[in-house]
Amino acid sequence: MASNSMGQIFKITTWGESHGKAIGVVIDGCPAGLMLSEEDINDALAKRAPGKSPYTSPRKEPDLAEILSGVFEGETTGAPISIIIFNKDADSSKYEPIKHLLRPGHANYTYLQKYQIFDYRGGGRSSARETACRVAAGAVATKLLQHYGISIDAELLSIGPYEADQPAAYEALEAAKNAGDSLGGVVGFVVKNLPAGLGDPIYEKLEANLAHAMLSLPASKGFEIGEGYRACAMLGSEHNDRFISESEKIGFATNHAGGTLGGISTGAPLRGTVAFKPTSSITLTQQTLTIDGTTASLELPQGSRHDPCVAIRAVPVVEAMAALVIADAILMQRCARP
Amino acid sequence: MASNSMGQIFKITTWGESHGKAIGVVIDGCPAGLMLSEEDINDALAKRAPGKSPYTSPRKEPDLAEILSGVFEGETTGAPISIIIFNKDADSSKYEPIKHLLRPGHANYTYLQKYQIFDYRGGGRSSARETACRVAAGAVATKLLQHYGISIDAELLSIGPYEADQPAAYEALEAAKNAGDSLGGVVGFVVKNLPAGLGDPIYEKLEANLAHAMLSLPASKGFEIGEGYRACAMLGSEHNDRFISESEKIGFATNHAGGTLGGISTGAPLRGTVAFKPTSSITLTQQTLTIDGTTASLELPQGSRHDPCVAIRAVPVVEAMAALVIADAILMQRCARP
Amino acid sequence: MASNSMGQIFKITTWGESHGKAIGVVIDGCPAGLMLSEEDINDALAKRAPGKSPYTSPRKEPDLAEILSGVFEGETTGAPISIIIFNKDADSSKYEPIKHLLRPGHANYTYLQKYQIFDYRGGGRSSARETACRVAAGAVATKLLQHYGISIDAELLSIGPYEADQPAAYEALEAAKNAGDSLGGVVGFVVKNLPAGLGDPIYEKLEANLAHAMLSLPASKGFEIGEGYRACAMLGSEHNDRFISESEKIGFATNHAGGTLGGISTGAPLRGTVAFKPTSSITLTQQTLTIDGTTASLELPQGSRHDPCVAIRAVPVVEAMAALVIADAILMQRCARP
Amino acid sequence: MASNSMGQIFKITTWGESHGKAIGVVIDGCPAGLMLSEEDINDALAKRAPGKSPYTSPRKEPDLAEILSGVFEGETTGAPISIIIFNKDADSSKYEPIKHLLRPGHANYTYLQKYQIFDYRGGGRSSARETACRVAAGAVATKLLQHYGISIDAELLSIGPYEADQPAAYEALEAAKNAGDSLGGVVGFVVKNLPAGLGDPIYEKLEANLAHAMLSLPASKGFEIGEGYRACAMLGSEHNDRFISESEKIGFATNHAGGTLGGISTGAPLRGTVAFKPTSSITLTQQTLTIDGTTASLELPQGSRHDPCVAIRAVPVVEAMAALVIADAILMQRCARP
Repeated sequence: MASNSMGQIFKITTWGESHGKAIGVVIDGCPAGLMLSEEDINDALAKRAPGKSPYTSPRKEPDLAEILSGVFEGETTGAPISIIIFNKDADSSKYEPIKHLLRPGHANYTYLQKYQIFDYRGGGRSSARETACRVAAGAVATKLLQHYGISIDAELLSIGPYEADQPAAYEALEAAKNAGDSLGGVVGFVVKNLPAGLGDPIYEKLEANLAHAMLSLPASKGFEIGEGYRACAMLGSEHNDRFISESEKIGFATNHAGGTLGGISTGAPLRGTVAFKPTSSITLTQQTLTIDGTTASLELPQGSRHDPCVAIRAVPVVEAMAALVIADAILMQRCARP
Repeated sequence: MASNSMGQIFKITTWGESHGKAIGVVIDGCPAGLMLSEEDINDALAKRAPGKSPYTSPRKEPDLAEILSGVFEGETTGAPISIIIFNKDADSSKYEPIKHLLRPGHANYTYLQKYQIFDYRGGGRSSARETACRVAAGAVATKLLQHYGISIDAELLSIGPYEADQPAAYEALEAAKNAGDSLGGVVGFVVKNLPAGLGDPIYEKLEANLAHAMLSLPASKGFEIGEGYRACAMLGSEHNDRFISESEKIGFATNHAGGTLGGISTGAPLRGTVAFKPTSSITLTQQTLTIDGTTASLELPQGSRHDPCVAIRAVPVVEAMAALVIADAILMQRCARP
Repeated sequence: MASNSMGQIFKITTWGESHGKAIGVVIDGCPAGLMLSEEDINDALAKRAPGKSPYTSPRKEPDLAEILSGVFEGETTGAPISIIIFNKDADSSKYEPIKHLLRPGHANYTYLQKYQIFDYRGGGRSSARETACRVAAGAVATKLLQHYGISIDAELLSIGPYEADQPAAYEALEAAKNAGDSLGGVVGFVVKNLPAGLGDPIYEKLEANLAHAMLSLPASKGFEIGEGYRACAMLGSEHNDRFISESEKIGFATNHAGGTLGGISTGAPLRGTVAFKPTSSITLTQQTLTIDGTTASLELPQGSRHDPCVAIRAVPVVEAMAALVIADAILMQRCARP
Repeated sequence: MASNSMGQIFKITTWGESHGKAIGVVIDGCPAGLMLSEEDINDALAKRAPGKSPYTSPRKEPDLAEILSGVFEGETTGAPISIIIFNKDADSSKYEPIKHLLRPGHANYTYLQKYQIFDYRGGGRSSARETACRVAAGAVATKLLQHYGISIDAELLSIGPYEADQPAAYEALEAAKNAGDSLGGVVGFVVKNLPAGLGDPIYEKLEANLAHAMLSLPASKGFEIGEGYRACAMLGSEHNDRFISESEKIGFATNHAGGTLGGISTGAPLRGTVAFKPTSSITLTQQTLTIDGTTASLELPQGSRHDPCVAIRAVPVVEAMAALVIADAILMQRCARP
């Protein structure tokens, strides 16, 4: 599994299992000279923290990140930044009774197929808890973006079949929760004040790297840039964004493309969406098999903590992934000219 | 632009401009001992060739690929396989009159922002012609997949707002073509007979690498695995695929997930979609700007050849990209156990 | 500094400064199913520990490594293995008085040129302490090598101008130490029971990767494979190792090549050497400049701990580096055939 | 063999066999805006061309390189630069009689062990002919270096046991040639006008990347930076280069380090050496085995062309490798600060 790293120059490597001693991330390639504190990271983690709304998992993760390296006298030094989050609130014993059961929608089957061993406690490496490390790394990337005045915002666009700002959305969520079930959702993101010229042609297109980053998130099932699938139903004459001259600068009359052309940023806001499936851990009893193929019935342990809609907590994670991709593109861009 | 490579072990590097001397691809990391001929590659290229339907560009590309290295006495040797396709039918002079115009939906603006220089002839490096190299490389990947009995099929699912098998779809296409306009479309793909256990957790999830590969295609705007965006509107109890025991093997009652769990193949068919925007090169007159920001009107040169719906010709390219991702995953998988 | 990783499949990323909170390494791509304990790592670290001989630095590093992830019930899981070593015995205040001085033979000048900031405490990231992480990672690689029956041994070949087994060697070392000076040395290594076929042609030749690994060690100045520089003075007819048939297997009458041909292992023992310069931290007063270019005199702080010959402690580090290179080659080799 | 690429940002991929249709290189990541012509490349190839001295192989390689992509109107565009050299003068039939013989000092044994197939004609992929592609790529890297005023020079330091400028050196070479034998040699290189701050700490140290590059050359057996192995016999007080102030700039009284400290350039000339073994292809009859292990006698085909000392022709190749490493370091360096 040489697969826990992301990025070419601004590169992260995450590690850790949900119920192990700790989780963490090493950020390699962050430029020297950025002001960085543990507060920067913990503020970002707080946005992701569960237990804040009735619809996110009640697990009480203090999630206090510690910076172990790469920062000296408040400034990044160019050395790798190691961030650790100790796991405090992890009772693994309750996973014991279900460890031989294949969990629908879960990774325990495929990990066993691949590795013949699986740290089943809390989902192990495949737990959404790993995304805390992405958020921590994203907080560092954000410091670089702020240096350039670039901002990123994500928001929940829909819950189940409803737009997120309709009352029906939270009613449906309440109903799903009460039924021991779950709902999916769509998260949108926008990157503002991005300069033109970021992203590389062909295999490092900005949207290709974003798609990679977003589809690496647990439970994600789709990605769109600009109009996405809606573009398919448009005419070329509608979809093409007309160039216009605004206050002596070149701009666009519309932004159907979503901020890139040929994989390179246009200077218009970069926007896209990410689809999340309904949480696969549900408290409803499910028919399944044991690892050996015997019919069985799965009931999640009492007190196991799951969000009825993972898309809600995915919002800051999507922001973090976008920040990581953009930070890398900013550094890559420096090599375009001699 | 260190961005012309894809893959970790089965790695390709493409090069060449639309109207340069040639285009080509170097495939590094292909195992030794596969039977490979130029026919294998040219058969794949023929599927992509234009001029076969009234709705693909009439450019007469013989696109005859030559293998320059890496094959000895009909077999791959483990050495890099260099494939070249000479450009024969390229009259660049007609691009001269429009070289100072920003082309809506095109990459010439962003390439100029990035590199301050652009080989404008036929779209240069950003031309869809680069995808011929992907198809050539995909043909080699397919030989490895065939060794494992894995097959890949893509098909056109929709044209504009219509399903591709509805008569309305081609009527709409005809209308768009006659109007000098274009339409988008959705391509679906399915990988069959994939063993369980392929793909790596976290950042090398199979769907993450597929998303990366597909969003690196010119004109692509979206990617889905399994139910994709439809999953967002489902309940967890609906979306979770139930494990079942079939002839002593573990299988699934449904396949909403689309063939992966936790980024690793389940053994069920891997299926997804790719969204393509309407072709940005349209013969309708478009308002635009010159490179210097002066208002101008763009008319594509007489005889410039453009597909009214790029999704049609994208079908074999989507297959090739899937083959490349799967080939790499097959090799990576060998390192999961000692 | 995207430069803290090594390896293609069996990949390590090290982090941490000499006087920071901790140092550590993340090992990504280790196959699942290897038995691994903290003792395995701490035993390897003990071999490197200082304070054991009068000629290694008296710093009392307990260097107790903790495994934070990637191991479950005593076995590797395929997930990244995070190993941490907390820094306990670090009094940084004594570096304060010399922080504005350029230290001859040290990296503080070049780090400042590159990053404009330097964590000067104990050498920060450039400290030889980073090599503890290499040794920890090497202990994991060694578990994989043991699975294949491969062994690695390094030894000190020379100290200053003397062969290491001559009494004069340690006399010279004692004299250098008493004079507040230091000596260099040569370390030799041998890998036994390596199968033929490891290493890849061209840029991933086994000796190229070994050279890279060894020259990445602090204070290293040279690398040889086989006869190394002695080969230059030999005739081809002398240097060519004759193939012989031994008990139905193909072997070699001699091993001038040092175990590779064309960058690929022959099955003969792999052997080479690494040159280490004399320790640059010496207690003798040295003339130097301040960061601003003013003439100054450098005296290392009382009680600063330095080895009079770094080559002595480099022995287990050279073994670790060789183990990491070989482990990666073993995994890469699995992709040579379909 | 995913092993035919080198470099992180300025990245090359070489391909082609000695007696195949062509050899070539793709350079990815070269900045846009460099003036580049085929003459630049052919001038560099001419320096490497054989047949110019009685001691280099008489093979008449015109070695005319063609640029197939990445250059537009005389300037690099940021797109990959594909360079091809067609093989013209290749009579493979004479290798037929020896194709079942293991060749001492050659790669045919190890390639067969690894791949079970070997393109034996002229050494196939393992031929020194591959280095023509390195020289071609090095010519492009040199254009970037010239932009910064950096120059690289290599020279032959010794032939066999003699310094290259002693008459005995060429006498020994003549004797070896007449005897059907060969000699090794040492090549030295120096990089001048390199700014301080290039190279990255830990695993991307400038000397580590140079060592990797040089040990990837056919027949190379050793590498030194600065004093190299001579440093081992020096005292720390001798080896440490004293900082001095020269015309308001910081410099060094000596340059034992060879231009780096901590893996990062100091601004002093970067200098090192590379050891080359005696050519393994000798016309003397050698005892060997067939592939099946039967005793046999090897006589190279009449008219096979081999240098009696490969180090002579290695001089421009060493320059090219150094240029490639430095070009990559220049681009990486741009990411050290925000």
